[in-house]
Parts: sequence; structure tokens; C-alpha cells
Amino acid sequence: MTKKVATKAAVKAYTEMTAEELKNELAGLKKEYERYQAMDMRLDMSRGKPCKEQLDLSMGMMDVLSSGSDLRCEDGTDCRNYGVLTGIDEAKELLSDMMENNPNNIIIYGNSSLNVMYDCVSRSYTHGVMGNTPWCKLEKVKWLCPAPGYDRHFAITEYFGFEMITIPMTKDGPDMDMVEKLVSEDPAIKGIWCTPKYSNPQGYSYSDNTVRRFARLKPAAPDFRIYWDNAYGVHHLYDQDQDHLIEILAECKRAGNPDLVYKFASTSKITFPGSGIAAMATSSNNMEDIIKQMKNQTIGHDKVNQLRHVRYFGDICGLMEHMRKQADILRPKFETVEHIFEAELGGLGVGQWTNPKGGYFISFDTLEGCAKTVVALCMKAGVKLTEAGATFPYHKDPRDSNIRIAPTFPPVSDLEKAALLFTLCVKIASAEKLLKEMNA
Amino acid sequence: MTKKVATKAAVKAYTEMTAEELKNELAGLKKEYERYQAMDMRLDMSRGKPCKEQLDLSMGMMDVLSSGSDLRCEDGTDCRNYGVLTGIDEAKELLSDMMENNPNNIIIYGNSSLNVMYDCVSRSYTHGVMGNTPWCKLEKVKWLCPAPGYDRHFAITEYFGFEMITIPMTKDGPDMDMVEKLVSEDPAIKGIWCTPKYSNPQGYSYSDNTVRRFARLKPAAPDFRIYWDNAYGVHHLYDQDQDHLIEILAECKRAGNPDLVYKFASTSKITFPGSGIAAMATSSNNMEDIIKQMKNQTIGHDKVNQLRHVRYFGDICGLMEHMRKQADILRPKFETVEHIFEAELGGLGVGQWTNPKGGYFISFDTLEGCAKTVVALCMKAGVKLTEAGATFPYHKDPRDSNIRIAPTFPPVSDLEKAALLFTLCVKIASAEKLLKEMNA
Repeated sequence: MTKKVATKAAVKAYTEMTAEELKNELAGLKKEYERYQAMDMRLDMSRGKPCKEQLDLSMGMMDVLSSGSDLRCEDGTDCRNYGVLTGIDEAKELLSDMMENNPNNIIIYGNSSLNVMYDCVSRSYTHGVMGNTPWCKLEKVKWLCPAPGYDRHFAITEYFGFEMITIPMTKDGPDMDMVEKLVSEDPAIKGIWCTPKYSNPQGYSYSDNTVRRFARLKPAAPDFRIYWDNAYGVHHLYDQDQDHLIEILAECKRAGNPDLVYKFASTSKITFPGSGIAAMATSSNNMEDIIKQMKNQTIGHDKVNQLRHVRYFGDICGLMEHMRKQADILRPKFETVEHIFEAELGGLGVGQWTNPKGGYFISFDTLEGCAKTVVALCMKAGVKLTEAGATFPYHKDPRDSNIRIAPTFPPVSDLEKAALLFTLCVKIASAEKLLKEMNA
Repeated sequence: MTKKVATKAAVKAYTEMTAEELKNELAGLKKEYERYQAMDMRLDMSRGKPCKEQLDLSMGMMDVLSSGSDLRCEDGTDCRNYGVLTGIDEAKELLSDMMENNPNNIIIYGNSSLNVMYDCVSRSYTHGVMGNTPWCKLEKVKWLCPAPGYDRHFAITEYFGFEMITIPMTKDGPDMDMVEKLVSEDPAIKGIWCTPKYSNPQGYSYSDNTVRRFARLKPAAPDFRIYWDNAYGVHHLYDQDQDHLIEILAECKRAGNPDLVYKFASTSKITFPGSGIAAMATSSNNMEDIIKQMKNQTIGHDKVNQLRHVRYFGDICGLMEHMRKQADILRPKFETVEHIFEAELGGLGVGQWTNPKGGYFISFDTLEGCAKTVVALCMKAGVKLTEAGATFPYHKDPRDSNIRIAPTFPPVSDLEKAALLFTLCVKIASAEKLLKEMNA
């Protein structure tokens, strides 16, 4: 995953153009923009939604259970009835293979890992973590937010009124010097959001060193937890060229910090978003703490859907085979966008973008102060992007530069048009900005 | 639903026996009890679980969606993908017919209405109700608990540390004089648990007058809410002889109290427990308040399962037809227990029980101080009952008298044995108690 740097000889970087040249360029760009507006496009690249073809891949799931099926699981439990608070054994087995954790340290939840994260924050707020003071009784709770990051993570901690502290992201993960310093000094800091693999939005994966440093954190707060949202753990785009993470729970255990992490995953982007199963892996101490709440909260999650998933995939190998088919659909989409970015913007010095090997997003950084304009220009020509600023706490990108590109949902033909429009809007916004700076 | 009163001429009430007579009786009972112990029974009558035959009724649900199905709902939304926070329209339509509410005032949730209730308490605790102070910032929160009632309700409010105040239940519902007085005087009282129809455990349904008085409450706390858990709204045992409730939201609206109620329901005991859909009906103001949280909490619930339910039932008439089949399975079970109670205990003056027209339970009241003994005696002979005391806040039945009987799960043949054993244990415990009182 390398950043594109201006190297082409044939193009002249905007930053090296004279005001006259920029004005000429801008006039051409604006004509082109009008042509796009006339096309009356209606495209949504705002959310990381699977496309129809990806969803079609999982339609076999609708056939694995029928009226003639035996819906008992291996231990004889009738999945149709009440009970089994933490999930059926075979679902824990499958998810443990996917998450690389001991099945005894896994809880299977309902359809949404986001909901599980919300629930963890909420439980800590109302009842505290492993006997510590409930956060609602504290004057202040602070939270570390590596950014650019996932807007729905930040929304949870904002909703609870926590003070969110932005941690710069590097291609190796969050700035660990800053994380270590803050976490060890300030007992008000209770957590950090992480998307460690194929991060949202850059597609970065944490380096081995980053994971090791996470596992060795010495938090001032005994109830500090790493919220490790491994949302894209098996969401590779390539069959060999894959990122690999050191497994965090195991590393924490080795480092003598077994209770430091809540790790989340789900099948939302494997089978059906909203109709998958979510899971959490954590230490036995944390599990015990969580189950104290769970038993008051529900009688159990949807075991029939757990069974459906297990019977459909059979085992982790079946699941990985399924993910290869997903990759075959997604790879051309990512490559389409990346090729167009390179062809249209390479050498212009007006933006940088990532070329991830997995996950759901490409991250684009405009010149400072251009992101909002680009998103607005795209919108006016019929392409909806994730709101500029959304990848930062409080929706405030201090440089107004980061834009999250979600290439998964539209068909390739639409994606080409949308990516071309996007590059056009980047050029317009950049030219306007540079002209403004020249007072021309 | 009438209480059985000792009327038989042939039997002599225990309360009228001499010590000698009681001792003789007890000796015979104990021999009989040993015979039961030798039978090595293993029966669970502790929870309101549907039986296998009930679950089999819904197996057609596994066939309504197949790999060839179009999983779009009527408005074109692909139910397989993300989105639609409050549920698909056709599910709201079906549930609105079931709940007797406007579909615009319904939110469809995941698989558990208990979880929705927990969530409502938790949200009120962390963020308050419609702009009022979050309950976590208050010194004290109190909650009204009509009892005997549902143990899992009480568990939620106990988990949050609320002071639970027991309200006596009558056959018309909670003691409304007490409810009105407490609610209007004490702003620390924030809610009340209600199972208004075929109540858990008595099977009582609130009278029209009770519902009208609920709708006209004048709470001292602006954030007081009635938690109206209509868990057994369509769970009749008979086709004509059914209880009917005044619809509470409509009545509250008419009374000028539109925001007073959160009303809950689910299909857990209609299709599959744990794999059904849950719903809440409430005023538009409350919905707005709740959605502010929901949008931070989840992207949406399981729409495929919503669609599965709608396509399976078609409409409310299909659902009611399904409930008639459920009733055909359950009616003989309730009647078996009631006939045995009448035959074995009628006229003995050692207990009272309910004969509900719907729901999942029969409530039994022993002589004061006998419930724990009866439950322990049953357990020692292989029949597990709901723990004595469970139907009261803090698991403390002040009279040690109430036992919840759950006749739905075991087959009729087992139920006969279990009910006979139960009556035997009631007789033993009663005889022992009376002898003790005689100091004999």
C-alpha cells in the first residue's frame, strides 16, 4: 500500500502552474463539469455497502435450513427455542477460526457488531468495568480516536459525551508514542477505537510493532480497554498479497495484559449486512464481567441464524472460499478507482490516496481546505460521497482534506463515471484554491 | 378466570383436621412421595418455553425464503443490505395489526423484546427521557413492580439499582389506588412493569377500569413511563372466550397523556423464541427521542428475518390462524394441570390457583410459608419449578406462597405426573405446616 507521488513527466503539477495556466485549466475543467451535470447521475459512494452481486453470493444461505431440517445443534440443543446465552458451540468454533481466538473466549451476539460496541460502552458507563467506578459517576471520560477513522465509532463516544482526542494515523497504525504517553498519564482515558486491519478509511493494517506496543500499554486507568474492531479480518482483495496482523488477545496475554482488549467481528460484510452474526472475543475475566450484564439483558441471540451460518459455510475453509468470491467482485472496483486516480491525478500534486489490499475503502487526501468543496461539487453532479470531515471526531477534519471513497456498491461502469467526476472535482477545487492563494 | 374455592363435600379440608388425622394423612403422602422419587423423573416446568410441537408449527418459515427469492420489500429496498433503522414497512404493518397501533408509531427491533426493555431503561439511565435528567445523575430511582410478576422484568430494574416497590396484583390488575398515589406523589418513581394481558404468572388481564386509570395517571416525574409488556397479546387458549384489553396508547392519547407509555411485543412465542422479531409502539415524541439513540447504536436490525415473518404469515389473519394451532397444543396442557389441581386439591383448603384463558402460566398460592418447601420437594423428586420467590422483587415473596407453574413445555403425559407430584408436595408441605402450628 504505497502513496502515489507525482512522477509523471508528461503532466505539469498544478502547484507549478502560473495563474494564467491555472485559469485556462480551470475554464476547461468547468466545461467538463457541466457535461457531467447534464448526465443526471444518481450514485451513492457514501457508505461501505456490499453490492448486489456480493449479496447474491450468499443466497445459498436461504436454502440450508428448510422445513425438513433438524434445527438441533451438535449438543442436542433445539436452536428454535430459548436459551444458550453466549451462542451455540459450532458458531463459536467457526468464528474462533475466523477471529483466531479460543472458542471459549468468544460470545456470539445478534446481527450487529456496532451494537455490541455501543453496548460495551453503555455497560461501562452504567455499571463500570470489572468492579471499577461506573463511568457515569466520573466527572470526565476521555477517548482516543485514531483519525481518519470510522465515523460510527466516533458517533458512539460523542453520544456519551466523552472527550475525544484525535490520534494521527500513520501507515503503521496510530501514533503509538502519543497513545502510550496519553494512556499512561491520564486515568480519564478509558478507551481507544481501533480498526486494525484494512482500516476504515485508509486500508492500513497495524504493523507488528504497533500491535506489540498496544499489548504492552500501561494504562493509568485500570478500566481502560482497547476497542479492537477487526471488521475486515478476512476481507482481502488478493489471494496472496494479504496483510497479516499479530493476534491481539494472544499478544496481550503474552505481555501480561490479558484483560486489555475487547475484540469485535461480524459476518455483516461476509453474508448479509444486518442479517449476519456478530461476535466478541475477550479474556475470561472480561467475559465474566459482561455475562453479568447479558443475563439481565436478553435470554439469548438468534441461534437459528447462527446455525444457518455454520451449516452454510461448514468450516473456515468454506468461509475463506466465499471471501475469495467476494474479492473477485471487489478487486476490479478498487482497481478501477485507483487506475482513474492515477491516470487523472498522477503528477498533478493535488492529492494523495491509498491503494489498500483489503477492506472497504480508499482514503483520499486533497490539498488542505479542499475536501468540503470536492464533496459538494460531486453532490451537485449527482454523486454522493461520505460527508467531508466524517472521518474525524466531531466531524471536524482540521485540514479539511480527507475524503473516504467507498467503491464497493456501484457497478464498475458507474464507478468509472463517478471516479472521473471525483478527479475532476478535485482538480477544480485545487485550481480554485491555488488561484485564491495567488490572489489571482 | 375464577379462583377455586373448597366446595367438595367428600373431602375434609386439612385446616379442619385434627393433629391425629393430619399425621395419618402425612404418613400416606410420604409413602406416595417415595414412589415418585423412585420414578426418577427429569422434568423442567421452570420457564415459559414453547414445546417441540409448537415450534414444529413454524417450520414452514424455513421455506418461505429460498435462493430464488426476491428479498426486496415492497418499496424496493434490498433487505439483504444495510439500512432501514426502524424496520421494513410490511413488518410494521403486520405488527401494527397485532399490537393494535398505528404502523407509524412502531419500531421493529431484533430478536428480543426483553432486550428492548433493558435498552429503554439503559437509555433513560444514560441519556434521560425526552430531555429530562439522565437517571444516572439522580440520587435515587424507584420503580413500581406489580407482584407476583415476571422475574426478568424485576432483574433489569434490580441490575440498575432502582428501589423496587411491590404493588399487589388483583384479578383486575395492579392495585391502582396505590399506583395512583405513589406515582403522583413521588418524582423518584420513573416507571412501572406491566404484563397487562394474561399476566405472568397469574394469567390475569387488566380490567377496562384499570387501563383507563393507567392512561389517566398524573405522574410527579415528567419522565415516568409505563412499561407495557404485552407479551401475550394474541396468546389466547380459547377461540371465543378471550380477554380483551383497551388499547393503552390510544387511551393515553384520548386522556391527553400521549407520551406515557412504552409498549412492547414480539413474535418469540408465536414463531421461534430467540429467532423472532420484537417491536415497540409509542408516541411520536418518544420515538423521536429513541431514534436519537438508535442511530448511534446500530445500522439496523435483521430485515431478512422481518421479511421472512411477513411472507410466512401474509397478514394478521394468517398469524391468528397460526395462534389457533398454538392454542390447540397448549389448551390440553393447561386443562390437564387445572383438572389435576381440582381433583387433588379441591376442598383441601391448602392452595389457590388461576385458570387463565391465555398466556403461558398458572399461578399457585400455597398456604403462607409453604412455597419454598413445595418447590424443594418437587426438585428432589425430579421436577424443576420456577424458584419460589422469583415472582417478587428481589426474589422475596413476603408470604412465601406464590409458585409459577409453566405447563407449556412438557408433553401431557409428563405434565400429568408432574402436576400429581406437585399436588402431593403441596399436601405434604401444608400438612407439615399445620402440624407445626399445632405444635404436634
